[in-house]
Amino acid sequence: MKITLKDGSVKEYDSAKSIYEIALDISEGLARNACAGEVNGEIKDLRTELNEDCELNIVTNNTPEGLRVIRHTCSHVMAEAVKRLFPNAKITIGPAIDDGFYYDFDSDPFSREDLDKIEDEMKKIIKEGNELKRFTLPREEAIKFMEEKGEPYKVELIKDLPEGSEISFYDQGGFVDLCAGPHLMNTKGIKAFKLTSSSMAYWRGDSNKARLQRIYGSAFSNKDDLKAYLAHLEDIKMRDHNKLGREMKLFLTADVIGQGLPLFTPKGTKMIMKLQRWIEDLEDNEWGYVRTRTPLMAKSDLYKISGHWDHYMDGMFILNKDEAEGKEIMALRPMTCPFQYYVYMNDQKSYRDLPYRMSETSTLFRNEDSGEMHGLTRVRQFTITEGHIVLRPDQTEEELTRCVELCNYVMKTLGVEGDVTYRLSKWDPNNKEKYLGDESYWNQSQQYLRDVMEKNGITYSEADGEAAFYGPKIDIQAKNVYGKEDTMITIQLDCEAASKFGMYYIDENGNKATPYIIHRTSMGCYERTLAWLIEHYAGKFPTWMCAEQVRVLPISEKYADYAEQVAAKLKKAKVDVTVDNRSEKIGYKIREARLDRLPYWLIVGEKEAADGTVSVSSRFEGPEGTKSLDDFISQITEEIENKVIREEVKKEEEKQ
Amino acid sequence: MKITLKDGSVKEYDSAKSIYEIALDISEGLARNACAGEVNGEIKDLRTELNEDCELNIVTNNTPEGLRVIRHTCSHVMAEAVKRLFPNAKITIGPAIDDGFYYDFDSDPFSREDLDKIEDEMKKIIKEGNELKRFTLPREEAIKFMEEKGEPYKVELIKDLPEGSEISFYDQGGFVDLCAGPHLMNTKGIKAFKLTSSSMAYWRGDSNKARLQRIYGSAFSNKDDLKAYLAHLEDIKMRDHNKLGREMKLFLTADVIGQGLPLFTPKGTKMIMKLQRWIEDLEDNEWGYVRTRTPLMAKSDLYKISGHWDHYMDGMFILNKDEAEGKEIMALRPMTCPFQYYVYMNDQKSYRDLPYRMSETSTLFRNEDSGEMHGLTRVRQFTITEGHIVLRPDQTEEELTRCVELCNYVMKTLGVEGDVTYRLSKWDPNNKEKYLGDESYWNQSQQYLRDVMEKNGITYSEADGEAAFYGPKIDIQAKNVYGKEDTMITIQLDCEAASKFGMYYIDENGNKATPYIIHRTSMGCYERTLAWLIEHYAGKFPTWMCAEQVRVLPISEKYADYAEQVAAKLKKAKVDVTVDNRSEKIGYKIREARLDRLPYWLIVGEKEAADGTVSVSSRFEGPEGTKSLDDFISQITEEIENKVIREEVKKEEEKQ
Repeated sequence: MKITLKDGSVKEYDSAKSIYEIALDISEGLARNACAGEVNGEIKDLRTELNEDCELNIVTNNTPEGLRVIRHTCSHVMAEAVKRLFPNAKITIGPAIDDGFYYDFDSDPFSREDLDKIEDEMKKIIKEGNELKRFTLPREEAIKFMEEKGEPYKVELIKDLPEGSEISFYDQGGFVDLCAGPHLMNTKGIKAFKLTSSSMAYWRGDSNKARLQRIYGSAFSNKDDLKAYLAHLEDIKMRDHNKLGREMKLFLTADVIGQGLPLFTPKGTKMIMKLQRWIEDLEDNEWGYVRTRTPLMAKSDLYKISGHWDHYMDGMFILNKDEAEGKEIMALRPMTCPFQYYVYMNDQKSYRDLPYRMSETSTLFRNEDSGEMHGLTRVRQFTITEGHIVLRPDQTEEELTRCVELCNYVMKTLGVEGDVTYRLSKWDPNNKEKYLGDESYWNQSQQYLRDVMEKNGITYSEADGEAAFYGPKIDIQAKNVYGKEDTMITIQLDCEAASKFGMYYIDENGNKATPYIIHRTSMGCYERTLAWLIEHYAGKFPTWMCAEQVRVLPISEKYADYAEQVAAKLKKAKVDVTVDNRSEKIGYKIREARLDRLPYWLIVGEKEAADGTVSVSSRFEGPEGTKSLDDFISQITEEIENKVIREEVKKEEEKQ
Repeated sequence: MKITLKDGSVKEYDSAKSIYEIALDISEGLARNACAGEVNGEIKDLRTELNEDCELNIVTNNTPEGLRVIRHTCSHVMAEAVKRLFPNAKITIGPAIDDGFYYDFDSDPFSREDLDKIEDEMKKIIKEGNELKRFTLPREEAIKFMEEKGEPYKVELIKDLPEGSEISFYDQGGFVDLCAGPHLMNTKGIKAFKLTSSSMAYWRGDSNKARLQRIYGSAFSNKDDLKAYLAHLEDIKMRDHNKLGREMKLFLTADVIGQGLPLFTPKGTKMIMKLQRWIEDLEDNEWGYVRTRTPLMAKSDLYKISGHWDHYMDGMFILNKDEAEGKEIMALRPMTCPFQYYVYMNDQKSYRDLPYRMSETSTLFRNEDSGEMHGLTRVRQFTITEGHIVLRPDQTEEELTRCVELCNYVMKTLGVEGDVTYRLSKWDPNNKEKYLGDESYWNQSQQYLRDVMEKNGITYSEADGEAAFYGPKIDIQAKNVYGKEDTMITIQLDCEAASKFGMYYIDENGNKATPYIIHRTSMGCYERTLAWLIEHYAGKFPTWMCAEQVRVLPISEKYADYAEQVAAKLKKAKVDVTVDNRSEKIGYKIREARLDRLPYWLIVGEKEAADGTVSVSSRFEGPEGTKSLDDFISQITEEIENKVIREEVKKEEEKQ
């Protein structure tokens, strides 16, 4: 038979050979790193015997597929260790997953100490260097085999397989697990691993079934990769907005209020207010928007015109559905569009009045299941700077470009412009009934958006089925710390809505003409943006957006008055300042200021009070020396005014 | 018999006398002004014969009761005039009402010209000076009488009266109307009247019954009072926020969105934003509040704890009532209280942290029938600066006083402090099951509020049954232009909520203690406040709160550039400015600026452009002369910064 390798070379053999044997034949080094084989595009166990012509790629331990094999084998090693230490634990399933593996056991919960013991036992097993041997049994024998071992979950799994199947097992020096493979040849192939956590899980994910204990871990082909992965895990944990945002007391949730309904504390509220006022003033004073304030609900009549009643009802909160006592059926709004259309129509507009750019700090609602809710990013209610631009068709390109430019300006000011990718979100041409408008409408409006991104040199991807039901979108996407992608900002073109609502303008000839509409935001919703900022900055926000920008720390109670004077002067300069006048040691106060991720803290004692100075420290570069209060005020107000993002100057030992 | 008069004097007569005869016996002047008699506290027709001892007060035409008689007689005169001019009209009912009278006719609609003709005919009738004569008929004869006159509505009215009744009529020189009286002796007693409007009305107020035409009018005992009343009507019409607010394009409503759901235009939005940012900064930076931002809905669980589920469910919008597909039952919030309680509980607080003053720019909801909705004052959704102060019991008086002071400061700054009255709103001791807490709780908490008002020298009334279900309130009341009173601001004391929600603080001995809570606002809701300001100022707002503070009017297109430079400099000084660069005559532009009730308009031409000046006009005193742009900027920014309420300097001829 002829075996064609990845590099195009061909090996010829007279008789059947296992993949492992072929790897060994190519080189001993390759065999050492081999985890599996890809035969005609399909991943196979190294033990698989090849007996006819095929294409073969030896999968090594530095590829994603190879890592999956290592991790899967590692989960077996973990199961063996658990059975050795906790003989009463029953084994269930233990797959490889993205970034690692888990195994579920019917047992008492595992503590971190238990995990440490299991890790030690696993190291022993790996050192023992047992080979993994594959064998099969007919279904009935396989059931009997696992019954004898006292593993009821395995029995149940085998019983679910079709009658007459051959069931495969792997034996690693006595510990046998039901498994389809593929696996390493020897447990020694696991060069680096770590058990990361454990938690409760239901058997088969069903809350009516047995409660199991799941242990998560990961494994790598070398220790450096594991180290990098563990550092990344630490970083994620530190940045996760749903953890850090609560720790920093920016928001909370309450069981009796509900999931997806965050409450912002004074600190979180102040941050959002700063963002909100900035965006409102930016749009109104510098980008030519007018602002509206429209109701959060409307009668069903409105949504019937807009199409939401037919296309989006499941996502809306319906009010007075039962029409009790003559109350009208209404719905909380999922969008601001038609509300702003009625503001537009309150006056007759001429071609000279367009583009008419409306924006609103608008609260919107989604009727979602509580299980889908997460922190500040999956919520039932959110507030967005939502706007609609009513424009003449000839203004389309210019206005879309301005929208993209505004978003860019906003993201740059927030310091997050490097986090995003652009997506052209199109309709699904195989699912036309979900959308308003015909093929030519969609082709044309999608082309408008494509043209604008290309002319502005934006790299973008295209995605079918991601459009709004009324038009295509430019979506600006960012990933959270766990790699999950969300739409942060969206710009949509809509050439159909105006005529549906009877909106018009008087053109140059005195006739009624139908405008286009752009639906857009400049920053997305405040909740999601705050989550983004928490994760991007790991809570160390630029000074201008901090709820507490400066804390004054008197060295002792004697200087409390001077501290208050300093604070009063800063407050007058519109700096958000507090005084820590507790009778704690100065070292303790400094430590707390640092832990609170404050941009600045000012230490004041006898010398400072006498000279009218402050001893400045910042999280950017530590001690910044003694400055006159006026100098410090100039420095910080300029930093705030210009929305400077000061970099943290890392000391040499921290850089490593 | 002995007749005891109002002044205590006694008249004795041998035989029965009518009230009119007794009035004539006292003095001819009194008889001339007499409209009715109050006999032992009951209002009676002048024709009523007295034949036993009683107390008598002659009701004259300058009293409210006297005016009712004049107006009722005037409605008969109007009916006679209508029958003379429109013989096919059928008469129905015509009562006196507050401020006037109306009469409903089955006829074609009446135009203003018709009303003028009817007025002329009424004047003739009054001049004829017919006496009104009362007579009665047995019920059956009365029915026959009205059937012969061809008045089916009167027949229906009589048929509704019990069988065997004596039915009374008044005859004024041939025109006879079914009526219980009382009436003047002669139509000449009507000294001044005016028909004000006409509109459609249903027979017996039932939309399934006949459509009638109602004519409204009023009448007075002298021409001066009528003139004052008509001027007042004009003023009301001009100030009515629901009319003026729409005319000034501050807000609109849309049928398909719904009643009670106003949409604010860019102009209205800007005004509300100015009020909102002012209040937020005032509370946070000067009155020691921290700000929260909490969700607009919660699960029913929350409202069960708060008591709203049992005491206020009808007023709430319930969501997912049918619990479809596992969605949770929730409700839109009618208040912010428990949401802020959870923010309070996010940290443990000590006695040193109290009072803890939270405020929120909070949107609230009321599920009301659309028929009850009105302009900006009866709405389904509104936004209020709502706050809760968590305090130690020993801080109650001081904190309540501060709340009252803040409200006073706000009202003074708005210029409306003269419009209000204070009310202590108490529980209804005859309806205890509507309230939480027992008698001693209510007596004590009501006394707290009484004490604070008395110590602060506030005049107040007391009202039973006006408390919140959880505690008594200080309500600050104001009347709209039609005299309808609304609560603008409220301060409530609640000594029970904290323990219900498990809120506590650590007292000086390290033990958990239960705080009191004050529910309060400083300005009430923005919608109602805007309505109040519109009516108070008749749309001529103080400069600081205007959406458009200055308009620059170039004399011709040649000075458009200079006008834009002027505007740019004003904008930089944070003044809200526009440029009227249309190619209209300057006189037209000035007229429009005046009609738009702008505080200032600046005329710029050759001289101004050359000198860097502006020619200033204001609605306060007309032309203010030519000023350097910098001087004008200093003037207006100081006016805005200090929230000055400039008085309008009336010219001599306007003062009359």
